[in-house]
Amino acid sequence: MPEVRAYAAQSPTSGLAPTTIVRREPRPDDVVIDVAYCGICHTDLSQSRDEWGGAEYPMVPGHEITGIVRAVGRDVTDLAVGDRVGVGCFVDGGCSKGLCDREHEHWDLADLVPTYNGRDHDGVPTYGGYSQSIVVRRPYVLELPDALPLDAAAPLLCAGIALYGPLVHWQAGPGRKVAIVGLGGLGHLGVKLARAFGAEVTVLSRTGAKRADALALGAHDYHPTSDPDTFVRLAGRFDLVIVTVGAALDWNAYLRLLRPDRALVLVGMPDAPGSVSGAELLVQRKSIAGSAIGSIPETRRMLEFCARHGIVADIETIPIQDVAAAYARIDRSDVRYRFVIDMRSLDREPAP
Amino acid sequence: MPEVRAYAAQSPTSGLAPTTIVRREPRPDDVVIDVAYCGICHTDLSQSRDEWGGAEYPMVPGHEITGIVRAVGRDVTDLAVGDRVGVGCFVDGGCSKGLCDREHEHWDLADLVPTYNGRDHDGVPTYGGYSQSIVVRRPYVLELPDALPLDAAAPLLCAGIALYGPLVHWQAGPGRKVAIVGLGGLGHLGVKLARAFGAEVTVLSRTGAKRADALALGAHDYHPTSDPDTFVRLAGRFDLVIVTVGAALDWNAYLRLLRPDRALVLVGMPDAPGSVSGAELLVQRKSIAGSAIGSIPETRRMLEFCARHGIVADIETIPIQDVAAAYARIDRSDVRYRFVIDMRSLDREPAP
Repeated sequence: MPEVRAYAAQSPTSGLAPTTIVRREPRPDDVVIDVAYCGICHTDLSQSRDEWGGAEYPMVPGHEITGIVRAVGRDVTDLAVGDRVGVGCFVDGGCSKGLCDREHEHWDLADLVPTYNGRDHDGVPTYGGYSQSIVVRRPYVLELPDALPLDAAAPLLCAGIALYGPLVHWQAGPGRKVAIVGLGGLGHLGVKLARAFGAEVTVLSRTGAKRADALALGAHDYHPTSDPDTFVRLAGRFDLVIVTVGAALDWNAYLRLLRPDRALVLVGMPDAPGSVSGAELLVQRKSIAGSAIGSIPETRRMLEFCARHGIVADIETIPIQDVAAAYARIDRSDVRYRFVIDMRSLDREPAP
Repeated sequence: MPEVRAYAAQSPTSGLAPTTIVRREPRPDDVVIDVAYCGICHTDLSQSRDEWGGAEYPMVPGHEITGIVRAVGRDVTDLAVGDRVGVGCFVDGGCSKGLCDREHEHWDLADLVPTYNGRDHDGVPTYGGYSQSIVVRRPYVLELPDALPLDAAAPLLCAGIALYGPLVHWQAGPGRKVAIVGLGGLGHLGVKLARAFGAEVTVLSRTGAKRADALALGAHDYHPTSDPDTFVRLAGRFDLVIVTVGAALDWNAYLRLLRPDRALVLVGMPDAPGSVSGAELLVQRKSIAGSAIGSIPETRRMLEFCARHGIVADIETIPIQDVAAAYARIDRSDVRYRFVIDMRSLDREPAP
């Protein structure tokens, strides 16, 4: 079986280093993809450091993958060598053929195979996009619309769908006021998407530092959350508040920004449990919800929407050799707004 | 202006004692109601003791009121002396005439006048149902369907609508599995209503002690939450979990009982903030929501539904002189399932 170059963590504290991994020979319904770019999702940091528990090493992170089809199994008739494709957060879920059409497959946790730090249905560990190639069953490979570039579209595969899903579900659109809390990898795509949905978009960020960026990204309004007056001025204003940050927040303060019967939606995995006052929920039938990733059909719709509206991530492209520095900068929230690794940089590493 | 007998708290620690209060002369759109019965809601205990802050004394509790129309203002043409009526948690919200038809008026907190422990629009304190009579603007008076008795229907005005609302909103019905957490005043009406909605109803109660009652009330299933195995067996089972208890619960454990994309709904005001794990919300798009009371139109629909399905509270009727003992028993959760005060017992108190 082919060995390919990759970067892997060997333990929670090892950081990432060059290695080689084995990719399976393509089965009849497999697609072999030369990885072109892979976005760095905050999940990559959390999981490679085993912050959520259950990490398996070696771990090759990466689930914001774009690339070019290098080969297809004999049953794959709707993708050809040279096609531009993407792979997101999961690489199997049991769909038998074609592009998976199950809208809620990503909730069938027993069946879902994460792109990395998981086990394939045959028990083999899965390795992610920080590698030269990946082999994925056809139903879980997404065709990349022509209008989307391989590099800046990579973050759409996780960060993009993570925001698109809740904006659809909680009906962002004309006449709706949407607040995006936090302007990072997730948040900046949230602003672009909510704006393209036709909503009135407000960014709530800790300081005033990102105001100009937020407005340039499409936000109509911006308020620093370090100013207590923000929570007075905006009380009862929003139809949807999407929290993209993992840092501990006073959720009750954000609940008070909602209109009655509306939801505060967490899309960034919080670092710690939050405290919720029942009164904030009861009196006006408010809710706190969470949302993560999306199904294959919804991801496809998201990519088509982004292609139509010219939405991609604002990226900083790096060679894989700079991944430790990039992680350090993400730890400091010092990225505007997503790192994308150019995987051709793996060619510089020793051959397997 | 007429003085009437009532029971009032004079301070957070005074308990309730006989007093007299003044009711206003009826205005053109007022209805004067001789109070027949008033249910004891847990809110009465919390507010009379100022557990939520903001209490104003003297406080006459009671917002589960049934009674008989004694007089109407000159503009009231659709209610007559002798009509059987009810009054719930609020007595004004700004509706100009007729029965209020605003579906979400109870969320317009700036305008809402609570039945007691509030201020009328003219600044006069409101006094609740632990009194011989009450004067309420026509839009906030509910006609009681003939099939509903004055005593056992009283708790419908708060406890009933508190459960009916979320069961409608979160679509309890045939094919849906609903868990009712806690079998008290709220919970036992939740069981009856959810059953009548056609849902499959499970009661989750701390011990096994209320199993027979739960099944007799209409539950299909019953599990004690003191048994950790309950949370294993029922994982991912329910379409809706309604928490009717104020006691601190591990909300995350109850979130795990939900199917994906479903809601845990708090209807009892929690005694303390709860801790929520973002992961429990994110992974399968679950939510925690709250719901309290309901609009006048929805309360009317609820009363009609209850009349059609023969749903009333299981009550223990007491004279007002026993209210302290009743409060003490509620503190011990020793009531099956709602105390209702027979207000004719006020006749025994000294005349104003």
